[in-house]
Amino acid sequence: MKLYDLEASGNCYKVRLFASLANIELERVPVDFLSGAHKQPPLSELNPLGQLPILEDGKQVVRDSQAILVYLAGVYGGLAWWPAHPQGQAEIVQWLSFAANEVQHSVCAARLVQKFGYDLDKSQALEKAVVTLSLLDKHLEHNDWLAMGRPTIADCAVYPYVVLAPEGDVDLEPYSHVARWMRRLEALPGYLQKP
Amino acid sequence: MKLYDLEASGNCYKVRLFASLANIELERVPVDFLSGAHKQPPLSELNPLGQLPILEDGKQVVRDSQAILVYLAGVYGGLAWWPAHPQGQAEIVQWLSFAANEVQHSVCAARLVQKFGYDLDKSQALEKAVVTLSLLDKHLEHNDWLAMGRPTIADCAVYPYVVLAPEGDVDLEPYSHVARWMRRLEALPGYLQKP
Repeated sequence: MKLYDLEASGNCYKVRLFASLANIELERVPVDFLSGAHKQPPLSELNPLGQLPILEDGKQVVRDSQAILVYLAGVYGGLAWWPAHPQGQAEIVQWLSFAANEVQHSVCAARLVQKFGYDLDKSQALEKAVVTLSLLDKHLEHNDWLAMGRPTIADCAVYPYVVLAPEGDVDLEPYSHVARWMRRLEALPGYLQKP
Repeated sequence: MKLYDLEASGNCYKVRLFASLANIELERVPVDFLSGAHKQPPLSELNPLGQLPILEDGKQVVRDSQAILVYLAGVYGGLAWWPAHPQGQAEIVQWLSFAANEVQHSVCAARLVQKFGYDLDKSQALEKAVVTLSLLDKHLEHNDWLAMGRPTIADCAVYPYVVLAPEGDVDLEPYSHVARWMRRLEALPGYLQKP
């Protein structure tokens, strides 16, 4: 099973982190991002959105980090990470959307500007980061994990760009419940360090 | 089962549309959005993100339009709309992320500026709309539906802000495959007109 991968990408780190926690073996295929290999064939045929990561499992191709988490957990990871009942799935999908929208356009965007020179509005991203991290902190004040009272793919979808947030000049200091949640996740067997 | 609802919201329309297609009965509770009722108790306790829609099904509360689609389809809608196997779920989640990220920050954002005066970058939203709609059009050139070769919650998550895009000054004319997909969806039994 191949993961088309970029070391510095938080979206790719979501998948590598989960695979490591769930003991799923992936063959990492580093993509030459700087030369734009992800926007050219053959990768642009696997993912027309021109984004990484991409998972290739035999004939099955999955793009989008959230969808890859669902795939890996559902096929190889066991019900602890992605349950079979729709109530639990919906609880998790709330956080997958939060990862794809709120996290992406706040802490992730700020890092893209600061570390990689992307042409995005950094001050707007930093404003959104305060809102996003405050919401997360409030949720984690009364919950050890994002969903279902245990580690799930929801945590693997949200953690990477949060732990990488200081690279976008985001101060995590005010968010003590977020900090404790990160320490809990980092103590899980199989935890994989951030890139 | 209550849907805390705003008529003009495309995110709420996702849920109303799906419920109508799948013949699921919802009690619509209109929220006084202009006075900010969604950001105050009791609604802010149901959804700390201060967003609509919110679904309340007995003791179960689900926020986020994508998560609500998963919940309704999984609990009440049947396997046609949200399958039990992770391969199909992952295929659909790709499009739920696309709805939460690409669609939200392009055609939806342009409409929020144009129709409701939101302080967002409209020219950037319109640029992103071209990219997003082009990707969608290319996918629909070879596919009748977004996922699994049949109508699923993926279509219900993406269609609303696409059909509403002209309200944000987005011209849908160049996207003929998108247009045909919209006609197919609009021909389904139980289809609910856009707000």
